[in-house]
Amino acid sequence: MPTLTLHTQKPRQWIDITDDVARAVRQSGVQDGLCLVFSPHTTASVVLNEHWDPQVVDDVLRWLEQQLPATWPHFRHLEGNSAAHLLCSWFGSAVTVPIAEGGLALGRWQGIFFAEWDGPRTRQYRVDCVGTPRP
Amino acid sequence: MPTLTLHTQKPRQWIDITDDVARAVRQSGVQDGLCLVFSPHTTASVVLNEHWDPQVVDDVLRWLEQQLPATWPHFRHLEGNSAAHLLCSWFGSAVTVPIAEGGLALGRWQGIFFAEWDGPRTRQYRVDCVGTPRP
Amino acid sequence: MPTLTLHTQKPRQWIDITDDVARAVRQSGVQDGLCLVFSPHTTASVVLNEHWDPQVVDDVLRWLEQQLPATWPHFRHLEGNSAAHLLCSWFGSAVTVPIAEGGLALGRWQGIFFAEWDGPRTRQYRVDCVGTPRP
Repeated sequence: MPTLTLHTQKPRQWIDITDDVARAVRQSGVQDGLCLVFSPHTTASVVLNEHWDPQVVDDVLRWLEQQLPATWPHFRHLEGNSAAHLLCSWFGSAVTVPIAEGGLALGRWQGIFFAEWDGPRTRQYRVDCVGTPRP
Repeated sequence: MPTLTLHTQKPRQWIDITDDVARAVRQSGVQDGLCLVFSPHTTASVVLNEHWDPQVVDDVLRWLEQQLPATWPHFRHLEGNSAAHLLCSWFGSAVTVPIAEGGLALGRWQGIFFAEWDGPRTRQYRVDCVGTPRP
Repeated sequence: MPTLTLHTQKPRQWIDITDDVARAVRQSGVQDGLCLVFSPHTTASVVLNEHWDPQVVDDVLRWLEQQLPATWPHFRHLEGNSAAHLLCSWFGSAVTVPIAEGGLALGRWQGIFFAEWDGPRTRQYRVDCVGTPRP
């Protein structure tokens, strides 16, 4: 199963990885089944949302910045990135997407994002597919 | 894999879809494995919670209304439904439930809900099952 | 598929279950595939996060205590644990982790936690694995 690499540029940033995941699914040889897109990090997430209008992601990040800024006086973890750890569990480390007819069965407006909560960093994610093999 | 349709009546509403998902799982022919209940939308979720006392869902929606109302002056997405997009990623687009003995292996109080964040609308969701076939 | 039991000691508590899940995965006989760690309860979650520095989890719980304490005057559910139900859907009932070479493919700092939101209680969780069998 492939591991893909990406580079984030900002402290908090969602990067559209839909095309790279779709390619990995087509190369997996699975016709119908499930695709897990998994982040092995503890200060990043993988999420689904609209990837047509970039204002959607901007609004999500703007609200989160107000709701949970990077610093909070009661955090004690010495590395200083507890907010990023919190967002990791809040939004989850992975999404599972159906595979149909050999490809990702996403909705019309859905895209897959790698969500950086503590960047910039070099990050990785896995694409693991299970199901019936392509005939 | 079946796609099911439902109609929501309110701006924010959780609809119990447990029975329909259970039927789809029994019809899938999978004896032991995983069932993915997946929303292809970007302003709705699929979630698990208690489906016995409707006050539980009412309380969840009441708290979210106070925490994240539909409007916030700093949202810029022109469609005006950024809060719904946010809730989509917050609660996730899908749940995965174990399949055992040919049916859903839910806990005693657990139900599966389609969570509308931007209704009323006509919505769809998929039920994809993988695992060992029924003997 | 095995069901594991644990006992929680506090109202809100994350318990590291990584080693027990890893053992169940090795015993499943799956070489490459997906592992679902699933809570059948409606006031608990299963989550991924750093399990090296316990201050990370402490900080997460401290922020949640301030953000969503156990009581809120507008909750109506008579059992009085609506905050715990809310956290269950907020953080999810399950995580899915890749299986590679017969074991959990977690990141270096990642651990799996059972997240108690309404303890102390005796709790259970399932470990269901699908994929290709070990050669």
